[in-house]
Amino acid sequence: MTENRRIVLAARPDGAPKETDFRLEEAPVPSPGDGELLLRTIYLSLDPYMRSRMNEAGAGYAPGVELGGVMPAGGVSEVVESRAEGFAPGDIVSSFTGWQSHSIARGAGAGTRRIDPANAPVSTAVGVLGMPGMTAYMGLLRIGQPKEGETVVVSAASGAVGAVVGQIARIKGCRVVGIAGAREKCDYVVDELGFDACVSHRDPDLPEKLGEACPDGIDVYFENVGGAVFQAVLPLLNPFARVPVCGLIAQYNLKPGDPPSGPAAVTDLMRASLTKRILIRGFIVYDFADEADAFHAEMGEWVRGGRIRYREDVVEGIENAPRAFMGLLEGRNFGKLLVRVAPDPTLP
Amino acid sequence: MTENRRIVLAARPDGAPKETDFRLEEAPVPSPGDGELLLRTIYLSLDPYMRSRMNEAGAGYAPGVELGGVMPAGGVSEVVESRAEGFAPGDIVSSFTGWQSHSIARGAGAGTRRIDPANAPVSTAVGVLGMPGMTAYMGLLRIGQPKEGETVVVSAASGAVGAVVGQIARIKGCRVVGIAGAREKCDYVVDELGFDACVSHRDPDLPEKLGEACPDGIDVYFENVGGAVFQAVLPLLNPFARVPVCGLIAQYNLKPGDPPSGPAAVTDLMRASLTKRILIRGFIVYDFADEADAFHAEMGEWVRGGRIRYREDVVEGIENAPRAFMGLLEGRNFGKLLVRVAPDPTLP
Repeated sequence: MTENRRIVLAARPDGAPKETDFRLEEAPVPSPGDGELLLRTIYLSLDPYMRSRMNEAGAGYAPGVELGGVMPAGGVSEVVESRAEGFAPGDIVSSFTGWQSHSIARGAGAGTRRIDPANAPVSTAVGVLGMPGMTAYMGLLRIGQPKEGETVVVSAASGAVGAVVGQIARIKGCRVVGIAGAREKCDYVVDELGFDACVSHRDPDLPEKLGEACPDGIDVYFENVGGAVFQAVLPLLNPFARVPVCGLIAQYNLKPGDPPSGPAAVTDLMRASLTKRILIRGFIVYDFADEADAFHAEMGEWVRGGRIRYREDVVEGIENAPRAFMGLLEGRNFGKLLVRVAPDPTLP
Repeated sequence: MTENRRIVLAARPDGAPKETDFRLEEAPVPSPGDGELLLRTIYLSLDPYMRSRMNEAGAGYAPGVELGGVMPAGGVSEVVESRAEGFAPGDIVSSFTGWQSHSIARGAGAGTRRIDPANAPVSTAVGVLGMPGMTAYMGLLRIGQPKEGETVVVSAASGAVGAVVGQIARIKGCRVVGIAGAREKCDYVVDELGFDACVSHRDPDLPEKLGEACPDGIDVYFENVGGAVFQAVLPLLNPFARVPVCGLIAQYNLKPGDPPSGPAAVTDLMRASLTKRILIRGFIVYDFADEADAFHAEMGEWVRGGRIRYREDVVEGIENAPRAFMGLLEGRNFGKLLVRVAPDPTLP
């Protein structure tokens, strides 16, 4: 058997992460104990939340990774050895693998879920049918609560979460406006995913362009970005608007003491919240863990029926994960960012 | 019959209102049309929200008062003449009177509610059993959703809303910490109303003192104040904290372009919302209008049973309303601020 190749946190980033903040290591492949599985990673999911975990303080809901610790990630893996009931070698599972080629997982009920390759490509288990898809589903439907005819705006619109948010909002009969960076991403969400409009956050006239795209104001703003994008959204929010706060990718690389990226003070936000009775609520997908079955049932149907489409941006080789992750924070990916760590045995 | 004495908006305030922003006028007493009542005001309620209505932009949920227009207020009145079914001269009602000695009201179902003087002093109809009480009740129970053993913090703690918030939270089994200005207000909410602790927002060590008073963090922060007080609260909020935004009295006199009263940027607030999954939601009492009966039933019971106590700060004479209102914005009142416009015929 080969070595376990893994990427550990070599240094805490000062602002944007750089290559030297990561280190590729080789270590012996671990052995599963009673009730455990040895997994070989096929796909790693790279997601913006990982940036927070690189800080000593962590992400609030989870501590920071220790220096020298394996970078955290969900992944899709093949069972190599099973000492857990109900799992056999060759099974495909999703679990918390970390950025490594091999991992140990507890059996069912501990974040390890069996994937049926007959249902959908197994990579979707960390995408549209996994954590990002469920994040979009819960944040939009449980917090955003869009009603037919309302206007829903989502930032990072072509990303793993944003693209799903917009498509669900379309299913619910809303006007959907995306905010993305590159022109091709805007074209994609309008032409391929059916958004009504998309504006670029690189446009210096973002506030005006967004206003033109939302002639009836904004009823739900699904926040993935923060910073100046939120500043452009705030004045357009309608009375009783809902703002699920899912991510703040524009803020993750801010250093303590950095000037804020927007001019508005908390006083302004609170005033808007009061006078317009706006709801702002941060969440992570695990807050809705007990509704996972409902998500899998409905989203599986939408994906199989072609009502929810997705796009993957697949990087080859775990050694390229750090560079791909740095690109993710700069918006250089296009679609759900995955690292293919080993050949996908379920593909023809 | 005497003249109608009324206070109108003479000029829009530039920052804090001053006496010359108001004008006392005399006008003929109006005549009620079909389905209308002529009312003589007994008590006027003065409340911080009125400051927003003095701006041209109004308060978001309601437009600004026009220059020369009567200042808005709820009040308790006696029916002088009735052309509406079910009302007779001598009845006591609560309604939107404005700052004036006489007003015209539509009959029932249009904001006019009959008060039974046998139940409680009629002044409570604009206090603990009226708009401020219902604001406290709905904001705390519907948005704050306090659970037994949680810590609830309320600012403007001795005020018409804050005092009720804290007492309801005590009934629900919470640890209750008030924030107030004067020492005597802090003593009052602890000694008379049963709060567990109270800290002064004038204390330069407010963040530390508040932290000491909340050793288990803050689960519900009922926001009446904004500005620097909210900045002190923010770092103490626990995961899944709820922040009903009811008022921002520290911010009402800010002028456009004034520097924000706290150092934190929106980026900080959004980060806290995300990592701690905090809910922030602005509201006004009318958002819960269809639950008024439930409020009156439960609060009436609490007040009659002595579980909710209240304190009134009564100013005599409508000509003193402007000065009393200016004092309210500076925290110079102590308890629910009322103006007695005419003798209360229900008092012995």
